[in-house]
Amino acid sequence: MAIVLGPNQYGKAENRLVTVTRDGAVHTIKDLTVSTSLRGDLTDTHLTGDNAKVLATDTQKNTVYAFAKESPVGEIEDFALRLGRHFVSSQEAISGARVLIDEHAWQRIEGNDHSFVQGTNEKRTTAVTVEGERAWVVSGVRDMVVLKSTGSEFHGFPQDKYTTLKEAYDRILATSVTARWRYQGDGIDWASSFAEIRRLLLATFAAKHSLSLQQTLYAMGEAVLLERPEVAEVRLSMPNKHHFAVDMSAFGLENDNEVFYAADRPYGLIEGSVLRDDAEDAGSAWHTLPAF
Amino acid sequence: MAIVLGPNQYGKAENRLVTVTRDGAVHTIKDLTVSTSLRGDLTDTHLTGDNAKVLATDTQKNTVYAFAKESPVGEIEDFALRLGRHFVSSQEAISGARVLIDEHAWQRIEGNDHSFVQGTNEKRTTAVTVEGERAWVVSGVRDMVVLKSTGSEFHGFPQDKYTTLKEAYDRILATSVTARWRYQGDGIDWASSFAEIRRLLLATFAAKHSLSLQQTLYAMGEAVLLERPEVAEVRLSMPNKHHFAVDMSAFGLENDNEVFYAADRPYGLIEGSVLRDDAEDAGSAWHTLPAF
Amino acid sequence: MAIVLGPNQYGKAENRLVTVTRDGAVHTIKDLTVSTSLRGDLTDTHLTGDNAKVLATDTQKNTVYAFAKESPVGEIEDFALRLGRHFVSSQEAISGARVLIDEHAWQRIEGNDHSFVQGTNEKRTTAVTVEGERAWVVSGVRDMVVLKSTGSEFHGFPQDKYTTLKEAYDRILATSVTARWRYQGDGIDWASSFAEIRRLLLATFAAKHSLSLQQTLYAMGEAVLLERPEVAEVRLSMPNKHHFAVDMSAFGLENDNEVFYAADRPYGLIEGSVLRDDAEDAGSAWHTLPAF
Amino acid sequence: MAIVLGPNQYGKAENRLVTVTRDGAVHTIKDLTVSTSLRGDLTDTHLTGDNAKVLATDTQKNTVYAFAKESPVGEIEDFALRLGRHFVSSQEAISGARVLIDEHAWQRIEGNDHSFVQGTNEKRTTAVTVEGERAWVVSGVRDMVVLKSTGSEFHGFPQDKYTTLKEAYDRILATSVTARWRYQGDGIDWASSFAEIRRLLLATFAAKHSLSLQQTLYAMGEAVLLERPEVAEVRLSMPNKHHFAVDMSAFGLENDNEVFYAADRPYGLIEGSVLRDDAEDAGSAWHTLPAF
Repeated sequence: MAIVLGPNQYGKAENRLVTVTRDGAVHTIKDLTVSTSLRGDLTDTHLTGDNAKVLATDTQKNTVYAFAKESPVGEIEDFALRLGRHFVSSQEAISGARVLIDEHAWQRIEGNDHSFVQGTNEKRTTAVTVEGERAWVVSGVRDMVVLKSTGSEFHGFPQDKYTTLKEAYDRILATSVTARWRYQGDGIDWASSFAEIRRLLLATFAAKHSLSLQQTLYAMGEAVLLERPEVAEVRLSMPNKHHFAVDMSAFGLENDNEVFYAADRPYGLIEGSVLRDDAEDAGSAWHTLPAF
Repeated sequence: MAIVLGPNQYGKAENRLVTVTRDGAVHTIKDLTVSTSLRGDLTDTHLTGDNAKVLATDTQKNTVYAFAKESPVGEIEDFALRLGRHFVSSQEAISGARVLIDEHAWQRIEGNDHSFVQGTNEKRTTAVTVEGERAWVVSGVRDMVVLKSTGSEFHGFPQDKYTTLKEAYDRILATSVTARWRYQGDGIDWASSFAEIRRLLLATFAAKHSLSLQQTLYAMGEAVLLERPEVAEVRLSMPNKHHFAVDMSAFGLENDNEVFYAADRPYGLIEGSVLRDDAEDAGSAWHTLPAF
Repeated sequence: MAIVLGPNQYGKAENRLVTVTRDGAVHTIKDLTVSTSLRGDLTDTHLTGDNAKVLATDTQKNTVYAFAKESPVGEIEDFALRLGRHFVSSQEAISGARVLIDEHAWQRIEGNDHSFVQGTNEKRTTAVTVEGERAWVVSGVRDMVVLKSTGSEFHGFPQDKYTTLKEAYDRILATSVTARWRYQGDGIDWASSFAEIRRLLLATFAAKHSLSLQQTLYAMGEAVLLERPEVAEVRLSMPNKHHFAVDMSAFGLENDNEVFYAADRPYGLIEGSVLRDDAEDAGSAWHTLPAF
Repeated sequence: MAIVLGPNQYGKAENRLVTVTRDGAVHTIKDLTVSTSLRGDLTDTHLTGDNAKVLATDTQKNTVYAFAKESPVGEIEDFALRLGRHFVSSQEAISGARVLIDEHAWQRIEGNDHSFVQGTNEKRTTAVTVEGERAWVVSGVRDMVVLKSTGSEFHGFPQDKYTTLKEAYDRILATSVTARWRYQGDGIDWASSFAEIRRLLLATFAAKHSLSLQQTLYAMGEAVLLERPEVAEVRLSMPNKHHFAVDMSAFGLENDNEVFYAADRPYGLIEGSVLRDDAEDAGSAWHTLPAF
């Protein structure tokens, strides 16, 4: 028996980067949180503390900021690819890089060229993996909180000795969507693809009559795959943010799905993936990403 | 020497209330977090555990939900006044009530009558105090995150032996605004007053050339008081969310206010109030509210 | 009518300070979060942006770190007093200072002179106010989470039309204590006073048979005042962290206070103060502190 | 091309469970957060909303509470195994279950039989996977925050054009350890195994002279594997909680590793695994767990 080093990675997490671009008096800002991590021949530092192959996480941080200066950041997918390819190509010991970026949204304050208000807590995300010459792009959205006040049912579930839930033929359905989709092919227009996929996710959540959150999840993923050939696979994590109709019979009131208590914990958690059966192999695209 | 009970209050905090109103197929939702607290002749429970005057916090919670059913919630100020007056008038021992409400914003998903996406993390707030026949309304906004990419300077500050900050003639100014304003007079249209005050706060933040965050704070409060006679006083708490231009001289790059590191802690914290010198007396309006 | 500047303050919040003291190979660490704020003649910066009287918040931060180097930090009350007095005495325009410190606890890792593990999330706190020659010290504890599994009842409360709560003759009582106590007099041994007060708070919570959380709150404050002449007043904020016995009758099980669901929101919130009737006047001790 | 359902699971997350056990007047409490998720033949609910095979998440919640009543909870590993095996054996469509439990620590308040204070924010964890007759147990600890004030260096790293970090020959090393270890074999005493592994992790962090956080991580995992034959593999995630010595040269002070600024973001993130080369195959033990 021997003890050996298994999979590992290291990097700098949550570099907060804001850039300002000026077109005359009109300013544009980008607000990103960038995390980098590197993989490769890192046995020495683990076993002996020899750091000759360990590009310092401080250097990774500097690289993020320097790259934002050296050329325009552009779309987060492109920026992540540039960073990942740089680390892999410039460090002999580094065979793989993962770059995660969250983009925070801002809106212009009306009538002003350089002032902004934060528009939403929702984030556009990307997770780019580079291995040698190969690269995978998994983009997504998180903290997209949605609610429908009707068009949702849940019944027909098994009854065992611990079942007390009543069947619901009209309920509130609410969730905070984390979606990730794996791209395939080349020449993708990241910005318009993101906008369309987000629109499809919202529209499907809204329009699909739901008999279970699983059905809604599948429909959302399916809608993206039907419309967007550049997407190979969609993974969704959708906590069921329960809204319970308050029982008011004790006060002599009938609550006809008008007044709800929004609960925090526990919550249902529905996670699933939808994919093309002929999708490109996922390779390392999902490695070390949260599973859904 | 004797030991005595001093000021005290008790209540139910953070009741999460969602209501659905139906106009045919078109649904409207309201999403509120409601906290109630009561004051009065509560010596018995503190000294002997006699609860004859203690309306249970569970009952307070039930009341919030029942009131939302018994008549439409309406504006948060009206709902808070109804609740506060109910507690004070119906419980002999209770002489005062404070009701705090945060309203969470949702937007319709385009093309759908009953589906919504959370629009922003910003909250509309109110803090209503009722004492006997009197009532005070302090409304506000919180988590309103704003940024301007130019039009902000900071210089001319004292130099002591611990001063190392360089003078800034062009910097990013960013803050998460918590504002509270005390209303005076009657017949206020809460919804339009809120919308106008929010617009004034944003417009002033954007337009005012800033030599200090204090100057911006004062200008924002002043703008509200100049335009809105129904407001007696504005209190603002504005953390300075520092954005530091990254020094890239070590990489041979000049960073001309293009690339910034957005810092978390520590942060400047600027707090202040702006008021009319002939404002109605504040009475208990601010009692036990956070100071700014 | 004129618009005027009201109360205001500014400073640097949440300076994270860790110090290492060496006694040969044996190291001692202190881990503090320090917030400073200043008050005084600050009209100019608010009205015109003239910062001649505005000691930069960056300078305040530097001062915190420099003071920690110039002499040992010692007890947080002493460190806060040194900082507050420095700001007030060295800046002509500054008439008052508030210094808030949280101390984070660490324990030694057994058998090692310089390694530590974080012992608890509970913090020792102080809030020191300096005005000219005067100073007030309000120390405390927060995030002290306690639970008793019996010895708590709640009944005899009023029954109105919205009351559904059942009377409880044996329940779990749990709360996260925030306590602040105002010191009076001189020559206080801050460390031993803190240790004794904390011990009294815990022992009283444990030993006092509780008919309401208010009664427990009062008893805790009273115990401190009875034993500690250096304390003029105690303010406590105690959220009732509800633990509901799970109703298992549907599964044919009787749950005799054995299995509980620990709820998050809403929660009861009990706040109160206990004081000596001959206490020194509070002056500015509590000004702008959270009310309880 | 067809669109198909990929991997999926669903369950109830964050059931907050507290139990009280009485031995005469002496009470013992257990405080757990339990999350369950199920996998299996769930195509119907995704494609058509037929829920005949979907054991409701509400039922899963009820089962957690009922099981805690039906027999003593015991060690979290045993409780998770009981729950997981129940779901898989009682529901024909369910082929796999994952049960995650965090245990929250409490200490007795001295001199009292039924009162407790929360001892630490650190959690003991388990992640149990059941598939048919097989089961895997991955236990761990999280939020174990440790710091050493000397005995840590970092130098010899590559210098590229973006490198500005100075070599360190004596620095603070601090991290919040998340460790997970996969058990193998039978008849494990979960409680004593946990206690010993925790002790080994702490002792190794303390004693190992560190040339990189990677070296410390490996040594911690190796120490567990050398001493504990019941462990097949250890995975660790260790954010480098940077403590920067404050540069005081501008104030004429020399800071000889005495005063530090504890930074929040960004942070180094070191993740790795250490395993026996003859370990049992991991099977589904890690499936859908965070990668490190």
